[in-house]
Amino acid sequence: MPGKRLDFLFIAKQQRIQRMWVPVFVEAVNKLGNLRIVENGNDLSTEEVAGLIRQCDVLLTGWEAVAVPEAIAGNPGKLSYICCVTGTVRALVPKELIAAGIPLTNWGDAQARSVAEGAFTLLLATIKNLRKRIDVIGSGGWSPQGIAGFRSDVLALMDVGIYGCGVIGRCFIEMLKPFGPRIRIFDPFASDLPDGVSKVDSLEDLFTRSNIVAIHCGLTPETRGSVSANLLAMLPDHGILINTARGEIVDQQALFGELESGRLRAGIDTLYEKPETDPALPANHPARQLKNLILTAHCLNSPHPTPDKLLQMHEICLQNLNSFIEKKPLSFLMDQQRYDRST
Amino acid sequence: MPGKRLDFLFIAKQQRIQRMWVPVFVEAVNKLGNLRIVENGNDLSTEEVAGLIRQCDVLLTGWEAVAVPEAIAGNPGKLSYICCVTGTVRALVPKELIAAGIPLTNWGDAQARSVAEGAFTLLLATIKNLRKRIDVIGSGGWSPQGIAGFRSDVLALMDVGIYGCGVIGRCFIEMLKPFGPRIRIFDPFASDLPDGVSKVDSLEDLFTRSNIVAIHCGLTPETRGSVSANLLAMLPDHGILINTARGEIVDQQALFGELESGRLRAGIDTLYEKPETDPALPANHPARQLKNLILTAHCLNSPHPTPDKLLQMHEICLQNLNSFIEKKPLSFLMDQQRYDRST
Repeated sequence: MPGKRLDFLFIAKQQRIQRMWVPVFVEAVNKLGNLRIVENGNDLSTEEVAGLIRQCDVLLTGWEAVAVPEAIAGNPGKLSYICCVTGTVRALVPKELIAAGIPLTNWGDAQARSVAEGAFTLLLATIKNLRKRIDVIGSGGWSPQGIAGFRSDVLALMDVGIYGCGVIGRCFIEMLKPFGPRIRIFDPFASDLPDGVSKVDSLEDLFTRSNIVAIHCGLTPETRGSVSANLLAMLPDHGILINTARGEIVDQQALFGELESGRLRAGIDTLYEKPETDPALPANHPARQLKNLILTAHCLNSPHPTPDKLLQMHEICLQNLNSFIEKKPLSFLMDQQRYDRST
Repeated sequence: MPGKRLDFLFIAKQQRIQRMWVPVFVEAVNKLGNLRIVENGNDLSTEEVAGLIRQCDVLLTGWEAVAVPEAIAGNPGKLSYICCVTGTVRALVPKELIAAGIPLTNWGDAQARSVAEGAFTLLLATIKNLRKRIDVIGSGGWSPQGIAGFRSDVLALMDVGIYGCGVIGRCFIEMLKPFGPRIRIFDPFASDLPDGVSKVDSLEDLFTRSNIVAIHCGLTPETRGSVSANLLAMLPDHGILINTARGEIVDQQALFGELESGRLRAGIDTLYEKPETDPALPANHPARQLKNLILTAHCLNSPHPTPDKLLQMHEICLQNLNSFIEKKPLSFLMDQQRYDRST
C-alpha cells in the first residue's frame, strides 16, 4: 500500500562527509523517499535551518550535520522522525525534541565492535611501546630494548580495569579474554557480569588494582572529569590509560603531566571537544611528541569508505527508514534515559 | 632421596641476556643444582666450549648462548640433558645431538600466546595505519583521513588467512574471533580445525581470497621462500602481510617492492637472519621509512623483565630441571620431527 513518497533532509555544516554518504547509501535512501542534502548549513541562520526542517518528513542527521534548533520542539511542522545515521545525538538534537515526542533513533550498537577494536589497537600499541619502536627503526636503530624509558609488556601478566561495562565495554572484554589478563570492571549500572570478570565498587579500587584502565563509559554529569588527577596518581608506575570514549571524562592536564613525567603511558583517541578547535591540540603542543602517548584523531573506528558497500550503520538507518514508512516499530529508539547516558 | 647436586652450565656468547637471567630465576636454578654461567664464550675455541660442556650434567641454553659443538654428539662426557630456556633450538643444538639420544627440551608452548599477541599488535597497528597516524600527529596535523595513501580498515569486514595452524596460529585465531573477520587457514599438517574456520588447499587460494595473511608456520625446507613474489602479487590491493615467524619464509625483496609501490601493507617482526647483521637492515635502508610498514626487531613478544617475577619460560625450565633430577618424564622433549619443524 504505497503512500506518498516522504521527504528526507540532511543539512551538512559544510560538505557532506564522504564516508557516511557513500554512493550506494545515497542511492538506497533515494529509493525510499526524496533525499535532499543541503551543504554549507553553517551559512544559514537558525531560522532558515528550522524552516527547512519543518518542510521535511524525516530529518537525517549524523557526522558533521547542523544541530536541530530547539524551536523545532514547539513547532515541528511536517517533521515526524529524526534518524541519526551515526552515534552521537546530544550535540545534534536538543533533549526538548525527545520531550516533544518526536521519535529519534541512532546507530545503536552498530559501532560497538568497531569502537572496541579501536580501543584494542591503542591498548596493544601502547603496551608494546610501538611508537618508540617505530621511532627507533625510522632513525636507523634496531632493537629498542635497553633504551632508557622503553618498556614493553605482555597482556597475560597484566590487570586490566574496565570503566563502564555497556555494549562497547563488553565487546572489549570479549576481545581481551584470549590474551589472558585479569579483568575487573567498575560500572554502577551493570546488573550482570561477563564470565570470568570481577567487579569493584569504586573507581579508586579500579585504578589502584589495574596496570591498565580502559574507559568505556558515556559522558554524563557523573563521569565528566571523574578520572581526576588523584585517580590517575593511583595507577601504578608504568600504568596505562586507554580512552576512546570522551576526552571530558579525564582531567586532561593531569594526564599530560603524568605522561610528560614518563610515569604513565596512554592510548587516547579523544580529547576535550570544547572549545571546538580543529585540530583539538595546538600544532606545537608538546604532548604530540611524547613517545609514551599514542594519540589519534577520534576516527580510529571508521572503516575505509567503499562506494559500493553498505556498513552496519547504513543498514540500521535504512531498516529504520523502512520501518517508519511501513509504520513498524523503530530500532534503537531514544528515550530520556538512553539520551542522558549516551555520549 | 637427594643425590649429589648436579652441575648446570650456561655459556653466553658475550654477556648473559638480562631478561632471561632475571635474578629470581638464577636463584631458583641455584636451588636445584650448581649453576655456572660462563660469559664471553665467543672468545673460547670450539674445543674449549666442548671441554666445558663435557664437565656438566645439564647444559642450559637459550637466547645468546654459544652453540653446542657437533663433536659433543660422539663424546658427550658427563652431559646428560640439554635444557633450552627459550624456543629456537636449531641454531643452538646440532641435530646430531638428538640422534645421539641426549634429551633436549625447550619452552614448548610457553610463548605461543605472547608471539600471537605480538602478531596481533602488528595486525591492528597495520590495519589502522597507526604509523601514518602517529606521523601526522607528531608533525602538527590532526585527522589522517583524506591524506593520499592513508587507509584504515575494520577487521569485521576483512578476510584473514592463516598460514600455519600450530599452537601459535591457533592462539592467533582465538584472538581474531571476537573481532568478527572471516578466517581461512592453510596448513597441510593440521588434522583438526578450530571452530568457525575453513581450510583452503593451497597457498595460492589463501592469498587470493584474503585481505590479510598472517604467517604462523615454522621455517622448513618447504616453507622457506614459499611466500614468493607471485604469491604476494595474488593479494588484493591494500592487502596486508603479517610475519612474526621467520623472515626467510618470505621473498623479502619482493615484499619491499610491493610496499614501496604502496600496493600492500605489512607488519613484520622478523627479517632474513643470514648474513647475521645487526641491525638486520642497513641504517639507511629505504624500507625503514615506509609508512605502510610497521617493522619491529623480533622482540615484540618479550615481556618487560621483572627481577622478582618468573615467566612461563622460567617455570617450564625449572619444572624440567626438577623432573630430570627426580628422573621423571620431561615436558616438551624434542624428537627428530619436532626439531625439523621448529623454527
